[in-house]
Amino acid sequence: MTPPPVTADWIATDWGTSHLRVWAMSGRSHVAQAQSDQGMARLAPGGFEAALLALVAPWLGVGTTRVVACGMVGARQGWVEAPYSAVPCAPLPKPPVRADATDPRLAVWVVPGLKQAAPADVMRGEETQIAGFLALNTGFDGVLCLPGTHTKWAQVSAGEVVSFQSFMTGELFATLAAHSVLRHSVSPDGWDDDAFADALDDALSRPERLAARLFTLRADALLNAADGRAARARLSGLLIGAELAAARPYWLGQPVAVIGEGAIAAPYVTALSRQGTAPVQADAGAMTRAGLIAAYRQIAP
Amino acid sequence: MTPPPVTADWIATDWGTSHLRVWAMSGRSHVAQAQSDQGMARLAPGGFEAALLALVAPWLGVGTTRVVACGMVGARQGWVEAPYSAVPCAPLPKPPVRADATDPRLAVWVVPGLKQAAPADVMRGEETQIAGFLALNTGFDGVLCLPGTHTKWAQVSAGEVVSFQSFMTGELFATLAAHSVLRHSVSPDGWDDDAFADALDDALSRPERLAARLFTLRADALLNAADGRAARARLSGLLIGAELAAARPYWLGQPVAVIGEGAIAAPYVTALSRQGTAPVQADAGAMTRAGLIAAYRQIAP
Repeated sequence: MTPPPVTADWIATDWGTSHLRVWAMSGRSHVAQAQSDQGMARLAPGGFEAALLALVAPWLGVGTTRVVACGMVGARQGWVEAPYSAVPCAPLPKPPVRADATDPRLAVWVVPGLKQAAPADVMRGEETQIAGFLALNTGFDGVLCLPGTHTKWAQVSAGEVVSFQSFMTGELFATLAAHSVLRHSVSPDGWDDDAFADALDDALSRPERLAARLFTLRADALLNAADGRAARARLSGLLIGAELAAARPYWLGQPVAVIGEGAIAAPYVTALSRQGTAPVQADAGAMTRAGLIAAYRQIAP
Repeated sequence: MTPPPVTADWIATDWGTSHLRVWAMSGRSHVAQAQSDQGMARLAPGGFEAALLALVAPWLGVGTTRVVACGMVGARQGWVEAPYSAVPCAPLPKPPVRADATDPRLAVWVVPGLKQAAPADVMRGEETQIAGFLALNTGFDGVLCLPGTHTKWAQVSAGEVVSFQSFMTGELFATLAAHSVLRHSVSPDGWDDDAFADALDDALSRPERLAARLFTLRADALLNAADGRAARARLSGLLIGAELAAARPYWLGQPVAVIGEGAIAAPYVTALSRQGTAPVQADAGAMTRAGLIAAYRQIAP
C-alpha cells in the first residue's frame, strides 16, 4: 500500500560531509523523512539543489516551501558560505543565510557554524544540535559531548557556548582501521566490552603512550592470534581514552550530556560512566530537528 | 656508453612491504644495485621469484648464485615464513631460512625477524640493520632508533637486542596527511623548521593533548589561512613529539644512534638533539648491507 502523499509546511535538513537527511515538517513535528549519501564531499558547487530536490520533490506543494539546512552545506565548498560566529555566543546568534535556488518552489536558508580563535576550532552542524538541546533543556549549564567523525566538546553556560574543542577520534579510528597496517588485525565489526575497558583505562592512565600501543594491536594479532573483534574494541578504547585524557578539563566535575546516535555515542557513555561521570544521553536526530526548528523561527514570516 | 656487465658473487636483498632493493656483491662490496616497487604487498605467494629475477637476472653467471634477503619477504605472506626469534637475543641468532626457487641459478635464503612477548612486538628487516650497525660498531651499548613506516626503538647491550618498541608514527603521518580531513590543510611537501620545533615541544610537554591538537591544524587553515608547509612540519612535530614522549625510557640518558634514510631520519635527529641527546647517525642502506653480509657468512660454504 502506498503511503498517503505528504506536503511539507517546511523542510528541516541536516547536510554533512557524507550524508543528507531531510524531514518534512508540519509545525514542530516531522511527518516524513528521507536520506541519501549526497553529502557535501560528493557534490560540486552547482549540485546541491538537484541533490535536495531528489529527496524532497514529493513533499513540495503549490507555492514556495522553506528549507532550513545545517552542516557542511554552509562551508566554503558548500551551497552558500554561511560565515562562522565567534564564541562565546549563543549557538544560533545570527539568522540563517539565504542560498540561491533556481526552482521557484524552493526557498533555502543555511545555518552558520561557530568558530573559536584560540585554540583555533570550528563546527558546522553541532551548533544546531546544541541549540536543540538547549531548547529542550532550558537552563542547562555544563558540558556537551557530540561524538562523530570529529567529536566536539562544548562548554555551555547561560545559553551560550563558552568554548569548544574538536577531536579527530572518529576519523582516526576509521582511517587506522581501514588504511593502516591495523586493517589486518581489526575486524570491520564486532566488539568486546572487556577489551574496550582495559584499553580505555590504560590510555587514560598513561595517555602519552598511545603512539606505542597502536602497533601492539598488530603484534598481538601476529604473535598471539588476538581476536579481531577485541582488537576493534581495543583500538576504540585507546583512542577514546586518549581523547578523554585530553578533554579532562571539560568533563571533570561537570554535568555532561552526550548527543549522538546510539552506536557512536555508546562507547563515550560507557567511558564517561567508568570515570564516575553519569552522562545524560540525547538523540542526535531529535536534537538536530529541535535546533532546526529554532533556526526556522528566525526566518519564519 | 653501456656499463660493463657485472656478475655477482652473491646478492644482498632488502625486501620490504613496498620496495625491493638488490645489490650485486663481490665479497663485502657492492658492485651494482637495482630496485623496484615489487614489495611484499604487491606480490602473490608465487610472484616473488619472478620479481627478483626481473632485477637480478643480468647479474647471474653460470652455476648457482646465493641470494640473502631480509624484511617482509620472510613474513607469513612472504616468499617463505622465517619464524621470529624471541628477544633478548643477538639480532641474527639463527641462520637464514631457505626459500624454494625453481630457477636453478638461484639459491635464496631469508633472514628471520625478531619478536617480543610483552609488550607484544615484532620486527622484520630492522634486525638486519641492527646486526650491520653492531658489526661496524662493536661494543655499542645503548639505543638504536630506526625511523620508518613503523619506527623501532631497540635497546642494545652486549651484542644483544634486549627489548624493542614499535611506533606507527610514519604510517600515522602518511595516513592522516593523505586520507583524513587534514589532507586539505597539509601540503604534500615543504617544511618549516620553527613550526616543527614548536609542535614538537608542545607535544613533548603535554603529550596527552595530541588528539586535541590534530584538528587544530585544520581549523588553523580555515580560520587563519595557515601555510600548508608549516602544517606539514607541525603534523610531523606533533607525532614525533608524542613518540618521543612515549619512548622516553628508551632514549633518556642513553647513547642513541639513528639509522635511517636522510629525509626520514632528519626530523628524529633534530628532535633528539633538541632534548639534549646528540644522536649518532648511520645510513640505512649501508647498515642493511652490513647486516646482510653478516647473514651471508652464516650460510656461506
